[in-house]
Amino acid sequence: MSGSLTVVGLGPGDPSLLTESARRALDAAEDLIGYIPYVARVPERPGLVRHASDNRVEVDRARHALELAASGRRVAVVSGGDPGVFAMAAAVFEALEQGEPAWRDLAITVEPGITAMLAAAARLGAPLGGDFCALSLSDNLKPWDVITARLEAVLRADLVVALYNPISRARPWQLGAALGIAAEIRAADTPVVFARAVTRPDEALRVMTLAEARDAPADMATLVIIGASATRLIPRAEGLPFVYTPRSVAAR
Amino acid sequence: MSGSLTVVGLGPGDPSLLTESARRALDAAEDLIGYIPYVARVPERPGLVRHASDNRVEVDRARHALELAASGRRVAVVSGGDPGVFAMAAAVFEALEQGEPAWRDLAITVEPGITAMLAAAARLGAPLGGDFCALSLSDNLKPWDVITARLEAVLRADLVVALYNPISRARPWQLGAALGIAAEIRAADTPVVFARAVTRPDEALRVMTLAEARDAPADMATLVIIGASATRLIPRAEGLPFVYTPRSVAAR
Repeated sequence: MSGSLTVVGLGPGDPSLLTESARRALDAAEDLIGYIPYVARVPERPGLVRHASDNRVEVDRARHALELAASGRRVAVVSGGDPGVFAMAAAVFEALEQGEPAWRDLAITVEPGITAMLAAAARLGAPLGGDFCALSLSDNLKPWDVITARLEAVLRADLVVALYNPISRARPWQLGAALGIAAEIRAADTPVVFARAVTRPDEALRVMTLAEARDAPADMATLVIIGASATRLIPRAEGLPFVYTPRSVAAR
Repeated sequence: MSGSLTVVGLGPGDPSLLTESARRALDAAEDLIGYIPYVARVPERPGLVRHASDNRVEVDRARHALELAASGRRVAVVSGGDPGVFAMAAAVFEALEQGEPAWRDLAITVEPGITAMLAAAARLGAPLGGDFCALSLSDNLKPWDVITARLEAVLRADLVVALYNPISRARPWQLGAALGIAAEIRAADTPVVFARAVTRPDEALRVMTLAEARDAPADMATLVIIGASATRLIPRAEGLPFVYTPRSVAAR
């Protein structure tokens, strides 16, 4: 088969945070597939066919991409952030595993990108400076009791916790519940970051205590970071404090 | 103060995986500070002063960078991967917190990069497709019993585990011990990836079972990924299988 499929990470939003390699993959594509706002980030050009689809149809979208590639097209599936982190890459491999055996001979590649937690961390200092984890709070694909068990485990192990998909119209209470669990395990003054739409025109960054975070607004574009016990602030004369987690952990 | 300090993520190695924003920061720098092999990645040019130092002097290096910035220079501190993930950003903020109060008024920024686990994941498929964590196995700055407690917690919580700093000449047995702990908690056929020097000329990728991994060679440039219970392989006619973790988790 002569077609190809590349899953491209667009990074957090600002075009300057795209890698050169991702940009080349976009420039080489004949078909562009993805969630509407991600497809919209890629400039139109002659010869580029755009297939924008709504959210929550990831495997259908992945199957469509594989079919186009199998027909000989050069296909780019676009994802915000990094495609391997709560994004399109896993959906593509799910569709590949369940699909036509011949699809496995296609040239399939993944172009990594700056995922939301790295972009948010960079804007604020170094909150992920120690051991950390990335959890999705969405219970669309995962039972809520698995999510809470994982959250409790990483909070007790004193990892920094990055929460993806913290809230949506259909999942309004999960973030509050997660912060409630955190408040039982971590101190009330633990630094918490709500980083919304990082590097995009509507970016909004908030640095709060865990106690304050429980009443703070969030939406689908928000990435939440809950500090570890050692995570600390460095105040500045102007603007937000820096947030960082020291590399060292004292003996217990 | 007119000086500035940017902590720049160079990504895994291939220059095409640098972001445009990181490249601009390097182009604007007057002083380049970092561990010898990272400084060596940045091409020489007139007006760029290079300060390469050995490993394990991170806070001294950070203090030097802040002093230069305070003297009015445009300084770039370079890090492999992402500077916020087991790299120079936390050291810079440690030095900032402990240093001259006036340093806090400097323009200090962090340019994110593609960290090793994202680069390795992209080369192999989507092994980080579910919840995951990043742990450093180095006990230079963290007691070994904290490391093992964290490792056990995340293994029992069924997260995918990315291990940074798995081994060095001074720490020869820790990776074997960590894989031994994993073998008590995860199945012997759990996929494990050893991804060495991803995207560099000496790249070496291995996909093994957890049982096989315990006898496999690794070095300082290796990033280890231990799959979750659902992590799976998709064999291909040629080359390594794809490794991916499905997005869904079944009810318990």
